Amino acid sequence: MVMPGILVLNGPNLGQLGQREPGLYGTQTLEDILAMLRAAFPAVAFAHVQSDLEGVLIERLHAAKGRSTGVIINPGGYAHTSVALRDAIASCGVPVVEVHLTNVHAREPFRHVLLTGAVCAGVITGLGPDGYRLAADHLLRR
Amino acid sequence: MVMPGILVLNGPNLGQLGQREPGLYGTQTLEDILAMLRAAFPAVAFAHVQSDLEGVLIERLHAAKGRSTGVIINPGGYAHTSVALRDAIASCGVPVVEVHLTNVHAREPFRHVLLTGAVCAGVITGLGPDGYRLAADHLLRR
Amino acid sequence: MVMPGILVLNGPNLGQLGQREPGLYGTQTLEDILAMLRAAFPAVAFAHVQSDLEGVLIERLHAAKGRSTGVIINPGGYAHTSVALRDAIASCGVPVVEVHLTNVHAREPFRHVLLTGAVCAGVITGLGPDGYRLAADHLLRR
Amino acid sequence: MVMPGILVLNGPNLGQLGQREPGLYGTQTLEDILAMLRAAFPAVAFAHVQSDLEGVLIERLHAAKGRSTGVIINPGGYAHTSVALRDAIASCGVPVVEVHLTNVHAREPFRHVLLTGAVCAGVITGLGPDGYRLAADHLLRR
Amino acid sequence: MVMPGILVLNGPNLGQLGQREPGLYGTQTLEDILAMLRAAFPAVAFAHVQSDLEGVLIERLHAAKGRSTGVIINPGGYAHTSVALRDAIASCGVPVVEVHLTNVHAREPFRHVLLTGAVCAGVITGLGPDGYRLAADHLLRR
Amino acid sequence: MVMPGILVLNGPNLGQLGQREPGLYGTQTLEDILAMLRAAFPAVAFAHVQSDLEGVLIERLHAAKGRSTGVIINPGGYAHTSVALRDAIASCGVPVVEVHLTNVHAREPFRHVLLTGAVCAGVITGLGPDGYRLAADHLLRR
Amino acid sequence: MVMPGILVLNGPNLGQLGQREPGLYGTQTLEDILAMLRAAFPAVAFAHVQSDLEGVLIERLHAAKGRSTGVIINPGGYAHTSVALRDAIASCGVPVVEVHLTNVHAREPFRHVLLTGAVCAGVITGLGPDGYRLAADHLLRR
Amino acid sequence: MVMPGILVLNGPNLGQLGQREPGLYGTQTLEDILAMLRAAFPAVAFAHVQSDLEGVLIERLHAAKGRSTGVIINPGGYAHTSVALRDAIASCGVPVVEVHLTNVHAREPFRHVLLTGAVCAGVITGLGPDGYRLAADHLLRR
Amino acid sequence: MVMPGILVLNGPNLGQLGQREPGLYGTQTLEDILAMLRAAFPAVAFAHVQSDLEGVLIERLHAAKGRSTGVIINPGGYAHTSVALRDAIASCGVPVVEVHLTNVHAREPFRHVLLTGAVCAGVITGLGPDGYRLAADHLLRR
Amino acid sequence: MVMPGILVLNGPNLGQLGQREPGLYGTQTLEDILAMLRAAFPAVAFAHVQSDLEGVLIERLHAAKGRSTGVIINPGGYAHTSVALRDAIASCGVPVVEVHLTNVHAREPFRHVLLTGAVCAGVITGLGPDGYRLAADHLLRR
Amino acid sequence: MVMPGILVLNGPNLGQLGQREPGLYGTQTLEDILAMLRAAFPAVAFAHVQSDLEGVLIERLHAAKGRSTGVIINPGGYAHTSVALRDAIASCGVPVVEVHLTNVHAREPFRHVLLTGAVCAGVITGLGPDGYRLAADHLLRR
Amino acid sequence: MVMPGILVLNGPNLGQLGQREPGLYGTQTLEDILAMLRAAFPAVAFAHVQSDLEGVLIERLHAAKGRSTGVIINPGGYAHTSVALRDAIASCGVPVVEVHLTNVHAREPFRHVLLTGAVCAGVITGLGPDGYRLAADHLLRR
Repeated sequence: MVMPGILVLNGPNLGQLGQREPGLYGTQTLEDILAMLRAAFPAVAFAHVQSDLEGVLIERLHAAKGRSTGVIINPGGYAHTSVALRDAIASCGVPVVEVHLTNVHAREPFRHVLLTGAVCAGVITGLGPDGYRLAADHLLRR
Repeated sequence: MVMPGILVLNGPNLGQLGQREPGLYGTQTLEDILAMLRAAFPAVAFAHVQSDLEGVLIERLHAAKGRSTGVIINPGGYAHTSVALRDAIASCGVPVVEVHLTNVHAREPFRHVLLTGAVCAGVITGLGPDGYRLAADHLLRR
Repeated sequence: MVMPGILVLNGPNLGQLGQREPGLYGTQTLEDILAMLRAAFPAVAFAHVQSDLEGVLIERLHAAKGRSTGVIINPGGYAHTSVALRDAIASCGVPVVEVHLTNVHAREPFRHVLLTGAVCAGVITGLGPDGYRLAADHLLRR
Repeated sequence: MVMPGILVLNGPNLGQLGQREPGLYGTQTLEDILAMLRAAFPAVAFAHVQSDLEGVLIERLHAAKGRSTGVIINPGGYAHTSVALRDAIASCGVPVVEVHLTNVHAREPFRHVLLTGAVCAGVITGLGPDGYRLAADHLLRR
Repeated sequence: MVMPGILVLNGPNLGQLGQREPGLYGTQTLEDILAMLRAAFPAVAFAHVQSDLEGVLIERLHAAKGRSTGVIINPGGYAHTSVALRDAIASCGVPVVEVHLTNVHAREPFRHVLLTGAVCAGVITGLGPDGYRLAADHLLRR
Repeated sequence: MVMPGILVLNGPNLGQLGQREPGLYGTQTLEDILAMLRAAFPAVAFAHVQSDLEGVLIERLHAAKGRSTGVIINPGGYAHTSVALRDAIASCGVPVVEVHLTNVHAREPFRHVLLTGAVCAGVITGLGPDGYRLAADHLLRR
Repeated sequence: MVMPGILVLNGPNLGQLGQREPGLYGTQTLEDILAMLRAAFPAVAFAHVQSDLEGVLIERLHAAKGRSTGVIINPGGYAHTSVALRDAIASCGVPVVEVHLTNVHAREPFRHVLLTGAVCAGVITGLGPDGYRLAADHLLRR
Repeated sequence: MVMPGILVLNGPNLGQLGQREPGLYGTQTLEDILAMLRAAFPAVAFAHVQSDLEGVLIERLHAAKGRSTGVIINPGGYAHTSVALRDAIASCGVPVVEVHLTNVHAREPFRHVLLTGAVCAGVITGLGPDGYRLAADHLLRR
Repeated sequence: MVMPGILVLNGPNLGQLGQREPGLYGTQTLEDILAMLRAAFPAVAFAHVQSDLEGVLIERLHAAKGRSTGVIINPGGYAHTSVALRDAIASCGVPVVEVHLTNVHAREPFRHVLLTGAVCAGVITGLGPDGYRLAADHLLRR
Repeated sequence: MVMPGILVLNGPNLGQLGQREPGLYGTQTLEDILAMLRAAFPAVAFAHVQSDLEGVLIERLHAAKGRSTGVIINPGGYAHTSVALRDAIASCGVPVVEVHLTNVHAREPFRHVLLTGAVCAGVITGLGPDGYRLAADHLLRR
Repeated sequence: MVMPGILVLNGPNLGQLGQREPGLYGTQTLEDILAMLRAAFPAVAFAHVQSDLEGVLIERLHAAKGRSTGVIINPGGYAHTSVALRDAIASCGVPVVEVHLTNVHAREPFRHVLLTGAVCAGVITGLGPDGYRLAADHLLRR
Repeated sequence: MVMPGILVLNGPNLGQLGQREPGLYGTQTLEDILAMLRAAFPAVAFAHVQSDLEGVLIERLHAAKGRSTGVIINPGGYAHTSVALRDAIASCGVPVVEVHLTNVHAREPFRHVLLTGAVCAGVITGLGPDGYRLAADHLLRR
């Protein structure tokens, strides 16, 4: 039996988590979040990629095709501006759940548009690191 | 020890779930969703209200103050048009998670604006009935 | 043989017809319009509901499912603002014709958007109480 | 006693009815519609003009002044773009009812604006060829 | 001689006054405001209705016709979204003054549009509970 | 010596002048205006074309090249909608002055955009038939 | 004990009150309004400035700092266009109430934006000269 | 017999005519234009005011009431931004013709809106200094 | 074997090619372009229609049905404004390629909208007369 | 004699061609398209770069300066969002033709804006892989 | 040798610097800024004008022509609304640098439009009083 | 004592300076600008990075934290489109000054929005390479 595998894809600035505006984004680092995910779902293989480059995120989505059970993506600022990333999600053939740590609907107007979220299975915003856990939970039951 | 209590608030047209455009909204009824929630969290008291009236939803939010651990709201169409419901959420003093069965970001432009979601703790869209379970899971850990 | 039945659904402020700005809306009351409909189509059972409450209109649309041959709706001001009522029409499974007494296209810009009309079979505007008769005539031949 | 006369004015592309995207516009031709009108109202003289030229439609509206009881106009695509046609309707001095076979409110956003409809007595959309019959019925009772 | 009568109509969420975000809306309750009005104008009969339901507010406006000297309305969030309430004010035949406790012009952009205020005699915003007193004062001198 | 020649080009609905909404457009006919022009400038050859067809106006502009001293155009409703007519004016190589009988800036918002006027030498609006005289006067001194 | 002092600041065109479009603005002059204010509040020192110059209004607001109990401003047309006047109000350190004689929400769309009102304590519109009295009444109780 | 009098009102930057961007505005000075007007209409008393101050232009419009036969105004940049100047024109009770030396419709989009022109009798744009002559000619025949 | 036939349809102002703003549109005439096409594809029957009338273009599209292998259309200014022409293309049942001599994306914003291009098979802009050759080449291989 | 050289630049997601939504983008791979180009133009040296990274595309455009006869670019999603890529095209000094496989004018509104196309020589959309061939054909004759 | 001269032009509300919202604008007065400038550039003659009147700023710009080496302008709120001031800068023939104490891009949306800055040589925002020093430094090296 | 260090970050296309549209961007190369900076501030350590990749710029901003006295960034085209770069600046904890060689306010509308500049300390536009020197000067005095 094959172990289910989830790709966790974190976009620009997320490598700074824990240090970056902790009042807004919290004190947990990406490593903390990954550890939390692995503790919550010990039978799942989590692959993790963080990149500040739009193109690298796109390449990883292409590579996920046929290899991952699902993808959790936090596209950071690219969620609001990237048609290219949107096209990559739309064509990757794997269920993708978009996660945002903060509630983007409560922030600047340009964060209310989710170009990428529109082609994901669904979107979870504002629930902090717990959003990643919920996304994984959903992908595993889907 | 007090049992945690979650108010599940369903807005207009959700009483028709299961019968209403099943290709879009699925075949589960609200009763199925409530049963699923109670099975998933047997130690939690779920109160449930469905109403097609904006004002009734507002009244229930007021009443939740100091009585519920958290609120799961699916405001249906009012999510996109109701300043009054938004004001009720903003002032109810209880954590609220908004849930939409479908991915509203993938539908008509007027569904991309979440007047209510902007004052909730967070929003979960597109994950079907499972969104309710994730919202409850989050509220109980919060 | 079953007698055909048409539900006539009148929204906010229409209970004031005849008294309300007669220069704009005419001197006929809702009762006059119903009487005119019954005289024009004596073989048809007309049910009539007027409500100023959005949610009550939604509930009546749900109840029409499988019981009415068709629905004539004059959503009044809700035509321009209610996503919830739109969703109720879209899912009620009965042909619905929207009627406006005045020509909404000739009035304030916010009356040019017909959120509800977009999911009806069709829309008749500006022909006064005769619009109800034409809508019934159409529903019976459909 | 003078026989009442109604001018039926059909705009661009309507000469193709029956052949043109029948899934959208139906299988009846303009001739079928005229025949249906004449059968429904045998005591009425129907004049009919179809033209793909905006200016020809304008000229015919001018000519209707003092000669027709009423005008049924289906301006096709000119409904959404022609200030000139709007001005012709506004000044022709005869009651005009605008008819659209499809429900323009349910189509592309540029079809939601009815420049011409705003100066007609009223508008009937989405009821197919039956819309012409209803318009004639209304004009004769007006 | 008939005692003048003023209907005070409070819309959604205003029943929570005093408890609801006191930093924004102040610590006075609706009862305090009514008591203040009665103390300031002892010769006036004040009727008071608070409702979270748009339709109930509409019904009360209809009922005020011919019975009240004037109406003070605080439509809460419906001020910005309700065409139906606007139509009720426009047709009620009694002078109406709209009051907002906070200065809506200084808040979110969607609060800058006053659909209802546009058909009132006038609007008073930002002066807190004193706005009700000023509105009553004006209606009695009008 | 060659007599100067001015082409007067009148667009849609202007053939109805005098009869068409005289409260708005005045009681003079196009013939009156031409007679007035010829009386005011007896040494000038005025050619006159009125057409309700956009394409005919375009063709006449092409024909004016090298033959007219200047063109006075009243494009009627095409002023606000016709890119094609704009392109014809821009390329005709003769000075063109646009005239509107009414003050279009004081009418509906869609009349505030002058697609054609933007490529004319200048525009005269709101001065009634006298606008034609002023335009001719200017073209002859240019 | 110091007598309270209120500065009444009237902007462009208000010097013409009484003569200027009396159907819209009424027949009272500024002098009448001042006299009414002084009669209503005999214990208050009213200073009055009317100016058609934006800069003069700004200077007077600066000068009011520490000298007036409050300011009543009717900025006329500058209410809708002047960022400079807005900045002056925001920094003058004295409570300011904005008054408009007419109900600006019921007029042209460009009068619905209140750049200045957004930084005042509150705004009173549509109540005619009585709006000044109410503003003074409020400032004295504040 | 009283000599007719025309007030010529020139707004901001027009005092620089002749020196200011001559490629755009020409080489004539305001003095040249006035001299041209006086030569063309020797029987007319022309008063002339140029001011860079919005308020001064407003004051002069008030003063023209009952004293001038007509006003020629070139509001310069204020044409596009000044509600106050618009209100002054609307209430001055004298026919006003707005003149722009350049064709504002052919320049930046913010010059296409004529707040002031909308309340003038008419507008002449793009005909250079000759526009003043035409405006005077019109006012004298009006 | 039937010779393939291509209809070349040129819209308003294109009859002036060669003379019309050659710096922008080049020095080739329509005849030159046709000759070039015939030289490039000697085995193809090219029919050519140029018209400044929107309705004539529509009629020709209807007539192409079942008679042409493909259509090359340069709708000129109608590309940006004509819903009627768009509808004709959408229903003509023959592959249509839209060609513009200039790069419309680099010109005024109103030329960026291609109402007609949206229902063509494809669009070629900015490549001058060579665009016609490429379009023919494509239609013949399709 | 130097062999002409064309740089073919493919942007994000285009490496997935053939596998990616074949109903929309076809079944040909980039290799197929390159092979087709080389077969069609055997005397031309085609260089090919595909990258999902905006910056890499920019660098390649800089490098093309003085080395390529022309560039064929399919910027994928960057066409609609990248000012940086636009600036690179504008300054590369080589003729660039933009190609899109699908007709972007027929898809979501955010695909109707071509930031990059506006600074290319021309744009070919909707003609599938054949668009590349046409672009090369044009660049070689230019 | 002539001493270089720089005109420092401060617009509305800037006379209040030091007292006006010091948390936003700092504690330095205009005098402090002038003294700082003179200390930093002892060989330069600085002229200084502060005015709350748009027209006075315009007049001073005209007067600077041929007399100043350069102009430093802080137009305050007029930067966002004044076409007249923009025109004065565009025609004054002296290099102008616009300075804002605060970062206008980080404030309300109406402060993001710089009508005046668009015709200056450049703009410096957000660097506090040091912005004046940098502007002078640049003008002297230019 | 630690030598102050400034990171100079240049975005897309800036590596082409000197060669790229010199009429617009000048003839100096990035090397010339760096040399100029080092000559002007010999006691400062300047680090320099130019990259066409958004993600590389983001990574460098993260790395500047705690290591640089300040950052001078010229984000090129990313200034107008990159939420991701904006977020990186907002969280880097070092004062950042944005510099543009040209006056972006005077160019295409899409260059008027400064997503990144809104979270910088300040912005200098239009002063050419001298803008870098001014930014360094400011950062060293801050």
